[in-house]
Amino acid sequence: MTPELTRLRRFARLALPQADAFLVSHLPNIRYLTGFTGGTAVLVVTSQGAELFVPPLYREQARLEVAAARVRTERGDPLVVASSWLRRRRLRRLGFEDQRLAAGQVETLRRALGPAVKLAGMSSPAEELRAVKDASEIARIRAAVDLGARVFEQVLPLVRLGVRELDLAAEIEYRMKQGGARAPAFETIVASGPRSALPHGRASLKRLAKNEFVIFDLGAILCGYHSDMTRTVYLGVPSAREKKTYRAVRDALERARATARAGVPAGRVDAAARQVLTRRGYGRYFVHSTGHGLGLEIHEEPRLARGVVTRLEAGNVITLEPGAYLPGQGGVRIEDVAVVHRHGVETLTPLSTELLCL
Amino acid sequence: MTPELTRLRRFARLALPQADAFLVSHLPNIRYLTGFTGGTAVLVVTSQGAELFVPPLYREQARLEVAAARVRTERGDPLVVASSWLRRRRLRRLGFEDQRLAAGQVETLRRALGPAVKLAGMSSPAEELRAVKDASEIARIRAAVDLGARVFEQVLPLVRLGVRELDLAAEIEYRMKQGGARAPAFETIVASGPRSALPHGRASLKRLAKNEFVIFDLGAILCGYHSDMTRTVYLGVPSAREKKTYRAVRDALERARATARAGVPAGRVDAAARQVLTRRGYGRYFVHSTGHGLGLEIHEEPRLARGVVTRLEAGNVITLEPGAYLPGQGGVRIEDVAVVHRHGVETLTPLSTELLCL
Repeated sequence: MTPELTRLRRFARLALPQADAFLVSHLPNIRYLTGFTGGTAVLVVTSQGAELFVPPLYREQARLEVAAARVRTERGDPLVVASSWLRRRRLRRLGFEDQRLAAGQVETLRRALGPAVKLAGMSSPAEELRAVKDASEIARIRAAVDLGARVFEQVLPLVRLGVRELDLAAEIEYRMKQGGARAPAFETIVASGPRSALPHGRASLKRLAKNEFVIFDLGAILCGYHSDMTRTVYLGVPSAREKKTYRAVRDALERARATARAGVPAGRVDAAARQVLTRRGYGRYFVHSTGHGLGLEIHEEPRLARGVVTRLEAGNVITLEPGAYLPGQGGVRIEDVAVVHRHGVETLTPLSTELLCL
Repeated sequence: MTPELTRLRRFARLALPQADAFLVSHLPNIRYLTGFTGGTAVLVVTSQGAELFVPPLYREQARLEVAAARVRTERGDPLVVASSWLRRRRLRRLGFEDQRLAAGQVETLRRALGPAVKLAGMSSPAEELRAVKDASEIARIRAAVDLGARVFEQVLPLVRLGVRELDLAAEIEYRMKQGGARAPAFETIVASGPRSALPHGRASLKRLAKNEFVIFDLGAILCGYHSDMTRTVYLGVPSAREKKTYRAVRDALERARATARAGVPAGRVDAAARQVLTRRGYGRYFVHSTGHGLGLEIHEEPRLARGVVTRLEAGNVITLEPGAYLPGQGGVRIEDVAVVHRHGVETLTPLSTELLCL
């Protein structure tokens, strides 16, 4: 049995007690359940199996990629085509992904299906399944993580006074692409000096200067799976205060790493990292959450944020990425990817977290 | 007056007759109306002005980028924060973008605002405005088009027997990034030989071989604006049949270009290109539509597709991109970007459409 068929069966077991049919519209979910990697499709799962609706443009591609679902190719918006197909079934209740289908698209469905069919929006069972990775997925994420780490190490010798942030980002993305990445997992961040205090500072035309932190945040999409890593290096000789900031962030990461394991509420991992930073006086400078799941998307379940009560599960793949951003001065972020196991986590990122001074 | 303030006023004139307040959730629309380029935000427009809700992560960035709206920074989902703010107003009717807000997000709003507030989903007035570009937008698109064209010309000398498609794509994306592009406008396509018959063929490990078409489809995001161009070159000496295919596509492009002008229904431009290809026997091999608007997004209004009755307007910026894809053999696509004027179009793509044989 292909992984897609296994996933579709598990999906049906979750979704169909709640509806006669379930419409999947979010492309990463469609990819997960069928293998289809194209840009336009709608999937309908019923107790009789799965139907994938794609426009003619994708006929050939769907034929090559999809074994677990019947492919139906018709001209027009696949949502409208799927609606016509559904109208001919005797449905009472159609499930849909309520965070993934626009209100206007639900209206399109409602008009096509008429008042006899109850539309039941719910969080996607596919996203629940996707939060726990199988071995083949972990292998792909590991390969994507390795590619990112390898490229980072290759680019380190280019990190020198006077180089532009943008040129380093271009070099990183070029090497990831040459290494087989379809695209960067997100716009590569290279942020130096005061710009390192911007948590989402894009690579700019700024040139690296002496005695500055430089944040590198990068990832690759390889075989559909994302990686994500951050390292902060120092150009020159750090002051005692800068070393203290770095140490606080690194200790926060280690506390998060030591806290995470199956059964622990995701919010507790965030709290663990936050507590370290707060005690060292950096609490108000840690302006984002501690981590997120990643896989077919760069941000997935679980979210490691304040107050999240969802418990981590074995097979979650998460980032751990505390940071401290001192406005006008500089910032530090360190980020690893880890797999959650029963008694702890396994770090995939094959790089030291010690402060590297260049 | 900044362009953003002008746009917000025009937006309010379109949106507020239909509601006391309008909630904008689609990020390109928020960027258009306020200048904010971050990844999480909600904008609310009322007759008293505009309020931009962003998480603390974006406080600094919003302060630097946004002059046309009041920036409100609070922890939590900006949609929930905006809902609380709206609840304290005396609203009767709140407009929202019905193709851009998920059904579940509308439920969140509904719960927060209670039954006294009528939620009115509609197509976004911002997207209606964005379809007609102002001079500063056309200048940016022109710069993005020029960057793509320049990079394509730089890479042409590398197009040789034995080179991998992927390496050419990596080279193109690297040079666009070095030229200031934030990212490619989409995953660069380099598709050769039988792979050129896949309209969305990604760059693969395939090496270029003798007597093949090679399709290059590429674009850059520069200052937020997208470009998009396709050229098909030939490696070797084309057969009479291959020359005929190329000529049919090129003639279809010229017919589309000659047909497009303000006042013409968008579908008529599609029909014009399609008619040329159909008469030459390629009708069934032209499996996509003739073009699309582009700007802050790669696909915007207007769509140049079958049956679209929307009339082109002066200031639309569109692609014209007919193609013919012969399964198992090969394909040809040629694509220019053009600005619609009163009496015709102005082509921005500064490259010949003649068949280049290498």
